[in-house]
Amino acid sequence: MPSLSSLSPNANVAIIGASGGIGAEFLHQLCADARVQHIHAWSRSEIDVSDPKVRFGTVDLFDETSIREAAVASSIVAPLDAVFVTTGILHDLSIQPEKSIADISPEAMLDVLGVNTVGPALVAKHFLPLMRRDAKTIFAALSARVGSISDNRLGGWASYRMSKAALNMLIKTISIEHARRFPQAVVVGLHPGTVDTNLSKPFQRRVPAGQLFTTAQSVSQLLQVVDRLTPADTGRCFAWDGQVIEP
Amino acid sequence: MPSLSSLSPNANVAIIGASGGIGAEFLHQLCADARVQHIHAWSRSEIDVSDPKVRFGTVDLFDETSIREAAVASSIVAPLDAVFVTTGILHDLSIQPEKSIADISPEAMLDVLGVNTVGPALVAKHFLPLMRRDAKTIFAALSARVGSISDNRLGGWASYRMSKAALNMLIKTISIEHARRFPQAVVVGLHPGTVDTNLSKPFQRRVPAGQLFTTAQSVSQLLQVVDRLTPADTGRCFAWDGQVIEP
Repeated sequence: MPSLSSLSPNANVAIIGASGGIGAEFLHQLCADARVQHIHAWSRSEIDVSDPKVRFGTVDLFDETSIREAAVASSIVAPLDAVFVTTGILHDLSIQPEKSIADISPEAMLDVLGVNTVGPALVAKHFLPLMRRDAKTIFAALSARVGSISDNRLGGWASYRMSKAALNMLIKTISIEHARRFPQAVVVGLHPGTVDTNLSKPFQRRVPAGQLFTTAQSVSQLLQVVDRLTPADTGRCFAWDGQVIEP
Repeated sequence: MPSLSSLSPNANVAIIGASGGIGAEFLHQLCADARVQHIHAWSRSEIDVSDPKVRFGTVDLFDETSIREAAVASSIVAPLDAVFVTTGILHDLSIQPEKSIADISPEAMLDVLGVNTVGPALVAKHFLPLMRRDAKTIFAALSARVGSISDNRLGGWASYRMSKAALNMLIKTISIEHARRFPQAVVVGLHPGTVDTNLSKPFQRRVPAGQLFTTAQSVSQLLQVVDRLTPADTGRCFAWDGQVIEP
């Protein structure tokens, strides 16, 4: 099991989206990390895990008051050492990623943009000021390689790609301002690889053998990546193998 | 006056956003271009220019039916040779670009994302299939250098930056699919420089002397840039001086 050994001892950590496939695994692995003393696990719906170091709460990413209250509650015991934003949609009952330009729907595009960027932006707004200033901290949001404009060779998935490009810009933008007051902060996007979750389920046929990760593999790799990052890396997007993903 | 000499003679051109500062100047300069025979000028509100080659119409970028009808009307005389999307907001009566993360408002962020990306996406959806296939065509949307993630050194303006990064991703994504059936197409974003329009008015104090363009200067430069571009350039963002803006 990886450990966030680069953080201060007795780290105080928050997960936003702790009931998602990847979020739940972050929760699981951080519970096992002796470096982590407190975990504030936030999600849309109630989740049921019994670990004395976990405090659960519900949060509505479309309600700024709810996010502000979650941030305050997460930092009462101590300033935050790490925040993981593991929310995001690619598809749901009414939204499918566009195979073609002809599939673009304004409602779906706005929904995907909103969930994948406005939620993380509000989390940043309210959680970043409550993070520790005197040691390394991590603020990481789930992005995706398909959000890289330079890496886009296939087209398709317009809304999801656009939302992740916008998220990568959010991360870069907030990292610059945050570094002025929090010089030891690491603010990054993370590409988890293709992970066996509900998000990737309809698209797993395309994944080459050996490249579909379990959530356990992916999260273990991501925790090792963020543990190695330094403030010089802030503002960028990193893949599960530690490679920088260029915009 | 520049001329779109790389297009077919008697070119059929559409401008979406023809009443804006830059859009109106595109209209003006294209009227003077002997290469251009028909101009379909679309805007939210009525505009009043009397030139026999211009056909005006109103379009609502939040209404897909309205955009589809505009596309069909623009291509009745002939397939389209060029489409210029000159819409976009940075600020309005209720929206100010964020100086700080603390200024982020979910409503304003979603508005800016919607206007600057969903509108151009719907224009692409309905206009691209109606463009000429047997000669060079141009589909160009106004982007901005501040939409470059790699170029972002100052932070701030989160929503506008995010919307232009998402727009640049849209352009890359649609350019790939469009090239399969329209191999001579040029689909690009354009950075007009800082232009003396209502959009830049509140921010012109920061602009170094000699770097604030009139709309006439900017549009003249942009027309020269797109006239020089080839299908090998499709999917990228170009500045007024012809330089590629990396994502």
